[in-house]
Amino acid sequence: MDNKHDILTLLRSVAEGATSPEEALLNLKEVPFEDLDYAKIDYHRSIRQGASEVIYGEGKTPEQIKGIVTAMGERGCRNILVTRIGQEAADILCGAVPAEYHPLPKLAVAFPEEREHRGSIVVATGGTSDMPVAEEAALTAETLGNNVTRLYDVGVAGLHRLLSNLDPIMSARCIVAVAGMEGALASVIGGLADCPVIAVPTSVGYGASFGGLSALLSMLNSCASGCSVVNIDNGFGAGYLASMINQMEGL
Amino acid sequence: MDNKHDILTLLRSVAEGATSPEEALLNLKEVPFEDLDYAKIDYHRSIRQGASEVIYGEGKTPEQIKGIVTAMGERGCRNILVTRIGQEAADILCGAVPAEYHPLPKLAVAFPEEREHRGSIVVATGGTSDMPVAEEAALTAETLGNNVTRLYDVGVAGLHRLLSNLDPIMSARCIVAVAGMEGALASVIGGLADCPVIAVPTSVGYGASFGGLSALLSMLNSCASGCSVVNIDNGFGAGYLASMINQMEGL
Amino acid sequence: MDNKHDILTLLRSVAEGATSPEEALLNLKEVPFEDLDYAKIDYHRSIRQGASEVIYGEGKTPEQIKGIVTAMGERGCRNILVTRIGQEAADILCGAVPAEYHPLPKLAVAFPEEREHRGSIVVATGGTSDMPVAEEAALTAETLGNNVTRLYDVGVAGLHRLLSNLDPIMSARCIVAVAGMEGALASVIGGLADCPVIAVPTSVGYGASFGGLSALLSMLNSCASGCSVVNIDNGFGAGYLASMINQMEGL
Amino acid sequence: MDNKHDILTLLRSVAEGATSPEEALLNLKEVPFEDLDYAKIDYHRSIRQGASEVIYGEGKTPEQIKGIVTAMGERGCRNILVTRIGQEAADILCGAVPAEYHPLPKLAVAFPEEREHRGSIVVATGGTSDMPVAEEAALTAETLGNNVTRLYDVGVAGLHRLLSNLDPIMSARCIVAVAGMEGALASVIGGLADCPVIAVPTSVGYGASFGGLSALLSMLNSCASGCSVVNIDNGFGAGYLASMINQMEGL
Amino acid sequence: MDNKHDILTLLRSVAEGATSPEEALLNLKEVPFEDLDYAKIDYHRSIRQGASEVIYGEGKTPEQIKGIVTAMGERGCRNILVTRIGQEAADILCGAVPAEYHPLPKLAVAFPEEREHRGSIVVATGGTSDMPVAEEAALTAETLGNNVTRLYDVGVAGLHRLLSNLDPIMSARCIVAVAGMEGALASVIGGLADCPVIAVPTSVGYGASFGGLSALLSMLNSCASGCSVVNIDNGFGAGYLASMINQMEGL
Amino acid sequence: MDNKHDILTLLRSVAEGATSPEEALLNLKEVPFEDLDYAKIDYHRSIRQGASEVIYGEGKTPEQIKGIVTAMGERGCRNILVTRIGQEAADILCGAVPAEYHPLPKLAVAFPEEREHRGSIVVATGGTSDMPVAEEAALTAETLGNNVTRLYDVGVAGLHRLLSNLDPIMSARCIVAVAGMEGALASVIGGLADCPVIAVPTSVGYGASFGGLSALLSMLNSCASGCSVVNIDNGFGAGYLASMINQMEGL
Amino acid sequence: MDNKHDILTLLRSVAEGATSPEEALLNLKEVPFEDLDYAKIDYHRSIRQGASEVIYGEGKTPEQIKGIVTAMGERGCRNILVTRIGQEAADILCGAVPAEYHPLPKLAVAFPEEREHRGSIVVATGGTSDMPVAEEAALTAETLGNNVTRLYDVGVAGLHRLLSNLDPIMSARCIVAVAGMEGALASVIGGLADCPVIAVPTSVGYGASFGGLSALLSMLNSCASGCSVVNIDNGFGAGYLASMINQMEGL
Amino acid sequence: MDNKHDILTLLRSVAEGATSPEEALLNLKEVPFEDLDYAKIDYHRSIRQGASEVIYGEGKTPEQIKGIVTAMGERGCRNILVTRIGQEAADILCGAVPAEYHPLPKLAVAFPEEREHRGSIVVATGGTSDMPVAEEAALTAETLGNNVTRLYDVGVAGLHRLLSNLDPIMSARCIVAVAGMEGALASVIGGLADCPVIAVPTSVGYGASFGGLSALLSMLNSCASGCSVVNIDNGFGAGYLASMINQMEGL
Repeated sequence: MDNKHDILTLLRSVAEGATSPEEALLNLKEVPFEDLDYAKIDYHRSIRQGASEVIYGEGKTPEQIKGIVTAMGERGCRNILVTRIGQEAADILCGAVPAEYHPLPKLAVAFPEEREHRGSIVVATGGTSDMPVAEEAALTAETLGNNVTRLYDVGVAGLHRLLSNLDPIMSARCIVAVAGMEGALASVIGGLADCPVIAVPTSVGYGASFGGLSALLSMLNSCASGCSVVNIDNGFGAGYLASMINQMEGL
Repeated sequence: MDNKHDILTLLRSVAEGATSPEEALLNLKEVPFEDLDYAKIDYHRSIRQGASEVIYGEGKTPEQIKGIVTAMGERGCRNILVTRIGQEAADILCGAVPAEYHPLPKLAVAFPEEREHRGSIVVATGGTSDMPVAEEAALTAETLGNNVTRLYDVGVAGLHRLLSNLDPIMSARCIVAVAGMEGALASVIGGLADCPVIAVPTSVGYGASFGGLSALLSMLNSCASGCSVVNIDNGFGAGYLASMINQMEGL
Repeated sequence: MDNKHDILTLLRSVAEGATSPEEALLNLKEVPFEDLDYAKIDYHRSIRQGASEVIYGEGKTPEQIKGIVTAMGERGCRNILVTRIGQEAADILCGAVPAEYHPLPKLAVAFPEEREHRGSIVVATGGTSDMPVAEEAALTAETLGNNVTRLYDVGVAGLHRLLSNLDPIMSARCIVAVAGMEGALASVIGGLADCPVIAVPTSVGYGASFGGLSALLSMLNSCASGCSVVNIDNGFGAGYLASMINQMEGL
Repeated sequence: MDNKHDILTLLRSVAEGATSPEEALLNLKEVPFEDLDYAKIDYHRSIRQGASEVIYGEGKTPEQIKGIVTAMGERGCRNILVTRIGQEAADILCGAVPAEYHPLPKLAVAFPEEREHRGSIVVATGGTSDMPVAEEAALTAETLGNNVTRLYDVGVAGLHRLLSNLDPIMSARCIVAVAGMEGALASVIGGLADCPVIAVPTSVGYGASFGGLSALLSMLNSCASGCSVVNIDNGFGAGYLASMINQMEGL
Repeated sequence: MDNKHDILTLLRSVAEGATSPEEALLNLKEVPFEDLDYAKIDYHRSIRQGASEVIYGEGKTPEQIKGIVTAMGERGCRNILVTRIGQEAADILCGAVPAEYHPLPKLAVAFPEEREHRGSIVVATGGTSDMPVAEEAALTAETLGNNVTRLYDVGVAGLHRLLSNLDPIMSARCIVAVAGMEGALASVIGGLADCPVIAVPTSVGYGASFGGLSALLSMLNSCASGCSVVNIDNGFGAGYLASMINQMEGL
Repeated sequence: MDNKHDILTLLRSVAEGATSPEEALLNLKEVPFEDLDYAKIDYHRSIRQGASEVIYGEGKTPEQIKGIVTAMGERGCRNILVTRIGQEAADILCGAVPAEYHPLPKLAVAFPEEREHRGSIVVATGGTSDMPVAEEAALTAETLGNNVTRLYDVGVAGLHRLLSNLDPIMSARCIVAVAGMEGALASVIGGLADCPVIAVPTSVGYGASFGGLSALLSMLNSCASGCSVVNIDNGFGAGYLASMINQMEGL
Repeated sequence: MDNKHDILTLLRSVAEGATSPEEALLNLKEVPFEDLDYAKIDYHRSIRQGASEVIYGEGKTPEQIKGIVTAMGERGCRNILVTRIGQEAADILCGAVPAEYHPLPKLAVAFPEEREHRGSIVVATGGTSDMPVAEEAALTAETLGNNVTRLYDVGVAGLHRLLSNLDPIMSARCIVAVAGMEGALASVIGGLADCPVIAVPTSVGYGASFGGLSALLSMLNSCASGCSVVNIDNGFGAGYLASMINQMEGL
Repeated sequence: MDNKHDILTLLRSVAEGATSPEEALLNLKEVPFEDLDYAKIDYHRSIRQGASEVIYGEGKTPEQIKGIVTAMGERGCRNILVTRIGQEAADILCGAVPAEYHPLPKLAVAFPEEREHRGSIVVATGGTSDMPVAEEAALTAETLGNNVTRLYDVGVAGLHRLLSNLDPIMSARCIVAVAGMEGALASVIGGLADCPVIAVPTSVGYGASFGGLSALLSMLNSCASGCSVVNIDNGFGAGYLASMINQMEGL
């Protein structure tokens, strides 16, 4: 109900007598989400944006996840992303509704439905160990209808591996750079590419990586223009934003 | 013995010869608590305040908890709160004394007794995962005799969920705002409400949430007046303070 | 316009034809504040709460402060608090409008007006150096119409200084405990008093006090029930919250 | 020389005998920048992107800045942005070349030239004190040819100020959310808007804001999808990225 | 061989021809410890000080611990302290040599031998959960021949529990104050007592206690004179130092 | 009034009718300090311990310092230490009362009086730059009546400088080890000496010394037994504690 | 392909018509590594440097490690180092290819081949618990063809243990100093030795060692010249760099 | 006196009666340094290594610096490096002894003397602002007799600037990589070069660079082999170590 047009429409309906003030107030309060007691499902965004719905699985019981997904499916939602969902919860979910599970990034897509893939997003990683986070980003972007090119293990300590892949980098509309340890990948890609670069620090590493802090700070300090950063290990956030940018309409 | 009236009474009793100086000193030392060797139970506060007794379960063995609760029950204590008590210890406790156990917030109420619920406290959370901490706050407040309204999963990223619940927020005497991650809930509620807001950062989150540090700092920096903060995950502390405020007598 | 009654009233006015939908939307957007370009003055709260207005002076030019205060004064605001305002800006302000300036806490009260002082708030400090923050709290509370008792330099390293002042502590409705360094004052007072204790860590200290971090963490970890914490050096926030609590109506 | 087409062209020229291998290597090394000894000016990006050139002024002497700008101007660069340049250095610069100086964000535009402004970027701030950073973002975006709407002092502690400005927020192609202290503005805007949100934490605040750390962590932990973060006080980076996104061509 | 008298004696022996220079050098290098390959046992200190030997068990295999203790026992060492040794390693040790194991502080005393207990050390804790660290301190001090009085669960949130135990505090020659959370115990005891106070922060707590950091900083910032601090959870270090101080000879 | 004997005496006086209960309570509250409004001077400790009085100068105005010292002098206090007092305040102080000022450690001794120096304390520093903190420790100890040997610039990077001074180290009753940067001095001295070692980290250094944090952590982690740590730059605290230990009576 | 000579050779081949531009570009991209999808094996360095290949095992599955090693072995690589490989993965590896496994440092050498050992590297540790990291350094250096002398458990708290081993220290060409806790070993060795010292902080310790942070900061702040630091627990990095330095050719 | 040969020689002299034991002990204590009271000048290293002497100027008065340098010059020292010396102290120094002052790195060379420059060290920086630290490294290395190539402003955000300078990088014997902000320069150079790389983080930057912490962590986490790190802004340490490595004799 936070949209000017919705408010105007509702007010006009009141002005025309079609809606009583009390109903309007009620309306204002009950439309946009469904209350499952333990969660308030928001159908607002999907209607407005035509996007997939997303459920953050961590901290929710398998039963809660199943409940939310089922309620969404009944409302007609498709390609529902469930992130950070363990094998056990995924088994319960896949037993209850049609769903695909990707164990590496611990991500499920419920009520999957083919959709057109458009544009061009690159997801690059510094090392092999960054793949779970990168796959969360890549699968998120693919589920949201984007073409994704994966460039894994192209860290800056072996620069030629990255330089040998300049083609996709130079032609991407958005790049997700995933790296732990020193996180220099984002800076180097940011200096090469002409498009927005979304940096994802990962908690991969040991010692003075301090759970991703080193990569996070490094990426925030990147001297390359056009870079921005999401939370440590937040592959979903990067994939979602990359999709937004890739699917921008022209001016 | 830290109360002026108690000291005066004792001194008068000495002056009247009813108590010898040596007894008075002894008295000064032995009255206010019972020494179980591993714990010094304090009956002082409950007598003074009519409140429930509280035991912090973490770091205590099931046997120690049972011992303390039993000793308290024999002294006549009722509605004894035991926080941070695991299932195993709860089973031992419930086998020994009358007690209700709430597994989500890991909280037990021993020697439960009905009491009148008064006033109006709101406990709100940013997400579903904050519920264990929120329930610790809500059950603490209820056990201490307060009416509690729960508003769960009303985080600021979906503002209409919060705005649709303005009624209880505007009419509360005290609000407990429980949130992890960016902790913005406290600021937004603090800006809307006219009553004291107690912010509880939670350790829910990952990456740069750093175990609740992010929410903690965010809440401490809240620009909204009337907000204060308790320790990360300290649902009990928030519930206890909310009860104090809710039950304030008028000037 | 975030109040249910306001919304209902507006909707009813639309339903009755007294207000057109377009006007209602406009109304929704323009009433609650005055836009000075560099600041959006909010008259909403003062009307709703009868409270004083507050301006955070830091980061505002003397001219901006004068502009905001003058606009408020013209609207009829009285006892306008300006916090963190330096001597130079205060001189400009006091030259333009009636105002009292307190240099120790760098706080001004513009358009001062006598008001009744009620209830009982104690403001205590660990040391002499905590006085600027304590005075910000105390003057804020006094300006908001509360009786304030000051207990300065009663830190726990000389416990008898605190114990000799048990009378005001035991009879307060709310206590503000201001301390830097180890911040133990809040815990000790919290253990003695029966009322809410608001802890204010200060940046007083050196070395491992890390600009108030030590006192902040200490206070957050206080084992005493009924304590909560505001930002480092946030005397205003503590005074404002103390006033809210002190002036609670009875159930 | 990091572009596939450039390399292919160069190699073809070698294959055709038009360029000797030694010249090619030389070419590879000397084209893309001009070496001023203390700085290596990069003309590569401007040719490739048609963008303005940018000079980070901090840590450079007024003479160095003047030297770099003059060299660029002679090469034909226009609308050269100089960020973090103090009044003194700006005076020297403006005395040497045509330039406009904005003292609040300490930003200069040298060899200014009118250009078409396109699309729609919103720059919002939590408070008045965030304006220097916000203006750095806004002026950067304007210099790069974007329409910019400023929404200043719309922090979440007074939510109606933000809600009254939903129109520009709902119609923006990209939003820059600038806030210090608790940094909740980004989350709330991220939950309302349908476009990418670039969060800029500021060092505005005191105590537990720890020089912008609080806002930074808060923004990184934002639960709203579509948000990403740049360095503390990095208005330029946000404005540059917002321009990139705003000017995306359609698929 | 770092003792002036030893060096002089050796040099005199060389001067007298009783020792050749080559032997002296050898002597200088091989006397003071026994090399077990994985450990260099130092008999120097025990001979010099008449103290017990100490082995830090963490990070050593049960076999290594057994080997070191056996070698020491064969050299005639008695009352050998083994700290941070788990139940399993303790079982192996107790099967091989005469030894007493204390599971709470995970401490063993091998080749135990009665010794006179002298002087007066107080070991106090803020809560029940601090007992493992406190017992490490107390048992270390007792093994080193000191009288120890235990005052457990006397945290400052219930000040009368501490004030009721002023006798041992006022008559101690050295006090070990063990506390987690806010660590205020050291300050309060330091303000009451006339003897050196050794503060031991513990990792007991949650949230913003950050593994003992809160108590550590609090104790370092103690305003009470005569306090010093050892590492978090370092009960042994505190007990050892307390013994040194308690057994000081008079001037 | 925190001493058992005082309490007993007072109670006996009440029992004998020599003191009324009301007077006793008053007595309990007013004896131990003098209230200067901005400071509560504590005469308790000096009477009990025969020690010098100490005033922490930082954060106090020159007038406040002069006021406190004068009041103390009138009560008969001698050798009053004023720490962290700048040149300007010292000039004012020295103009008002007899006092010696030491500009390097910014320390003054007011109403100086010769006293016997006893025992043996060593104050050692890692470098020349640590001298201000070391002098604060040394002068404090000397003022409190101890013999002090200074060993400056004996840092471990030139080990022979330290080894050439083994005599005073081996014969000291207590050693204060003052060092910034890596703070290894405390460990090395702790391994050599047989007496308690008080480590004082200093804020001397740059970069990753983080204002003394590096030395502080290093000293807390010292593997040498008998070491404890005081706050960064707290020369006074170390000197005071060293005096306590040096002047211990024999068992 | 990042080597001038390689580029020149390739360009000459194009100029001579032996290589087409398209092939050259292809060449530029495909030569230097083999793409196993999950990893890009880099044969470049081994050819250029004659060094062993290294695989960082952590975060790779046993199957991935086996795959990479097998592919390398087939290419003729020998003495392939696999670091941070657990027992289970090592069993799989040793079952598939000839390999030696060292469980303490969790390090395997695949396709082992005798090679000459040259020069002189010392690896020293502060304590027994630092051995896993030290062995990673020592075995790395030995596998790369260096003579290694181990000096374990020579921490500075027992200085004579270190001073008794001055011979190897004074004659080393490079020293690796491995220590946790206070990390003073590097400073002391750095002050004694005339050769480069590589400091390796370890995560050994507890409390305020904060996972190696204390040793790391201490080593970075070392006052001894010729010291540098690698990541916490990075024995491999230290051993590799020590080998580089030990095997330097003369000028 | 920490050298085996010195000790043997001394002991033989005692054995031959040429030295008395008491003289030997004295000898042991007085030879290696000159005691200026505020500093202990160590001539040991220069004799042993033929290196220049170094004085760390920060925290020393101009008079102390002049005193130390003069004493050294009288002893015959040449090319004495004084680091971190301000203009004022440099003026005093240059007025007293022959000396060259470099204001950018605040470094002086006293009693300068031509010496042969050998080998090849590269000093590279990420940006123009890193030059003061880089010059400290470069001048230190030059003063110690090394050839130095400067590559300034070759940060990774414009990779071609670095790639155009591969010649000196590939032929260096040691590289010093100086960078602030994200510090990625060390990783990229480390991946390209075959020689040891010494990384120097600088405090250049703002916001989340946290005074060089970001670059420091980034460099410690570098995935490139052969890299090690010195303290933030420690150009001298890097130059000194680079000289050690560059001047290694062959095996």
